[in-house]
Amino acid sequence: MNTEKTDLLAQSDHGAVRRITLTDVRRRNALSESMISALTTALEAAAEDSAIRVVVLAADGPAFSAGHDLKEISGHRGDADGGQAYFEQLMAACSALMQTIVRLPKPMIAEVRGVATAAGCQLVASCDLAVAGEGARFCTPGVNIGLFCSTPMVALSRNVSRKHAMEMLLTGDLVPAARAAEIGLVNRVVAEGDLEVETMRLAERIASKSQRTLKIGKEAFYRQVELPLSDAYDYAAAVMTANLMDADACEGISAFLEKRAPTWER
Amino acid sequence: MNTEKTDLLAQSDHGAVRRITLTDVRRRNALSESMISALTTALEAAAEDSAIRVVVLAADGPAFSAGHDLKEISGHRGDADGGQAYFEQLMAACSALMQTIVRLPKPMIAEVRGVATAAGCQLVASCDLAVAGEGARFCTPGVNIGLFCSTPMVALSRNVSRKHAMEMLLTGDLVPAARAAEIGLVNRVVAEGDLEVETMRLAERIASKSQRTLKIGKEAFYRQVELPLSDAYDYAAAVMTANLMDADACEGISAFLEKRAPTWER
Amino acid sequence: MNTEKTDLLAQSDHGAVRRITLTDVRRRNALSESMISALTTALEAAAEDSAIRVVVLAADGPAFSAGHDLKEISGHRGDADGGQAYFEQLMAACSALMQTIVRLPKPMIAEVRGVATAAGCQLVASCDLAVAGEGARFCTPGVNIGLFCSTPMVALSRNVSRKHAMEMLLTGDLVPAARAAEIGLVNRVVAEGDLEVETMRLAERIASKSQRTLKIGKEAFYRQVELPLSDAYDYAAAVMTANLMDADACEGISAFLEKRAPTWER
Repeated sequence: MNTEKTDLLAQSDHGAVRRITLTDVRRRNALSESMISALTTALEAAAEDSAIRVVVLAADGPAFSAGHDLKEISGHRGDADGGQAYFEQLMAACSALMQTIVRLPKPMIAEVRGVATAAGCQLVASCDLAVAGEGARFCTPGVNIGLFCSTPMVALSRNVSRKHAMEMLLTGDLVPAARAAEIGLVNRVVAEGDLEVETMRLAERIASKSQRTLKIGKEAFYRQVELPLSDAYDYAAAVMTANLMDADACEGISAFLEKRAPTWER
Repeated sequence: MNTEKTDLLAQSDHGAVRRITLTDVRRRNALSESMISALTTALEAAAEDSAIRVVVLAADGPAFSAGHDLKEISGHRGDADGGQAYFEQLMAACSALMQTIVRLPKPMIAEVRGVATAAGCQLVASCDLAVAGEGARFCTPGVNIGLFCSTPMVALSRNVSRKHAMEMLLTGDLVPAARAAEIGLVNRVVAEGDLEVETMRLAERIASKSQRTLKIGKEAFYRQVELPLSDAYDYAAAVMTANLMDADACEGISAFLEKRAPTWER
Repeated sequence: MNTEKTDLLAQSDHGAVRRITLTDVRRRNALSESMISALTTALEAAAEDSAIRVVVLAADGPAFSAGHDLKEISGHRGDADGGQAYFEQLMAACSALMQTIVRLPKPMIAEVRGVATAAGCQLVASCDLAVAGEGARFCTPGVNIGLFCSTPMVALSRNVSRKHAMEMLLTGDLVPAARAAEIGLVNRVVAEGDLEVETMRLAERIASKSQRTLKIGKEAFYRQVELPLSDAYDYAAAVMTANLMDADACEGISAFLEKRAPTWER
């Protein structure tokens, strides 16, 4: 097991699964400028590392992530432009991070313990899958501080239905894990004590699949979902054909027909 | 409390919450030409009134709203063109009403007692949030009278999943409140006796937020939800930056960091 | 009752409901080239037959449909181009079949007994409605054989929310009927012994509506759902006006106002 740790993140590899853990407990794992940068860098490294097939995003401490670092934001009110240039850059960097998750050529699973707030909730919504501990809670409370969760809602509204998204956004209320599962924000809720084991088991099962196939599928998913039906089928049919020509599909189908386990090329 | 009443609507203000109540009990609150016009006017007035932060739409009598007024429609069969020009104008006016709800710069909550039928169901689906009494029921029964609920389905299919929408549209069956909550057509179901109190409590909590922030957020929600992910993030990041430069965000963030209640500029 | 049977399909008419039953039990109703062709032909015939108002898709044997025929696919690995031209044509034909269901001018209901796998699951997702027996199960297991379910996910992701779709696609796990109902992949689950009766009852109720109205509504549904809100309303309002000018709407509305049963022109 290869382990690495900074003030902001810890990373460890478990077979083909990389766990990235937010460790800025003091700031409740806020998506500060440095955290956004560190997490983006970590994801880019995970994307490049051919030994890694699945990424799990976890967090230390009572909060999964508190969203933007409001002290940092306030600290730029005194800039000559009142902070505008800084805010632009911060929002661009945070939005780029969320899209890095979506574009990551490997499945990414949020393992949520504690409260996921605002951009922290957006992190969960941006992951492909999410497992929550029973005590996890979710909210988009920007409306309470005069700053509507407009970027978080991009991810939120692509996960849950409109009335549910609007309720979270307009009230800022905490949503318990069980309700988050009901509305589709997380896939499942497990006992706190089982959270890491269950999430890692899910990750390892997915990591047993062909890496190339996971990459093809994840990319195609997010691309086709934005297309009209007819275009989506044209695109997906082309993806299927290319996938069928890939060595791993050839091996996988042969293995299935021969009733043996496949050996992936990658 | 400021109260106003016509044959079609009653309006009353409760702090920053305006209740608009459909009062055409005799016609089961049908969306007649005059009701569409009265409701549109009432919403435009609510939009303009800076003292109002949230709108609640309620209804008197056993039906929340029966949808289009079929007698009125039938009455135009004898027009020189068989009613075509009238129908065009009616459908345009009704569709404009529904979009007025979506574009209203203030959150709007449906408080549903009784049956919400066809365009009446569309009203509920068009509101940002909906609270239903236990006895409330929902249906899109146009298919039973040879007139498919094609405009209601625009709102319905943007609230509930395809199979659920299609079941309502193809069967015309009544959906009980509990099922409507399960499929995402309403946010929650409460005892009939608590309906007004619970809805007003929700409205008042939302009305305690910054009016400007609510406006920014609601507008951004419906705009970003129609964009591809990358465009949605570009747009939402720009909205967040502009929101951060607003006095209410400055105050809200400061108040949060100073652990005091915010005082909104508006 | 008019009944017809080949090795691949059985067809029988029950009033205005046509049952098309997959009967290739030996191949677990795989969507082989010949099955895709037979089913497409059967749907085109149902579309043309003015006596038919609703189509039910059922299946014999333990599997509703196993998806693509992997033996057939493997058999083309030896083609001069490694199968590419064949795969292209197969994927195009299968995607065309799914879109034939969506464009069929008559409601189509999946009656699911047993396992619906990959393109078999896509069949269910592509139907307007789906009723499942208690023992039915659903999966998109292509990821297990190196061939991500990229075409099935076009239909799947338009029925269920993203996290739910991704869980099915990334794990390949079987989803029991009850869970499929929870996530919106099927409308309802009934006891195995009641499956045919319940599905036919639903089909017959829908078949009692005006055929023209069903056609107008189904076509409008899938078209408007892909449009921005404002365009969707412009389009749907025009559809409503045209629908109002149709003889069946005239009759249906008159019958409703006169409290009698309507007699449809078609």
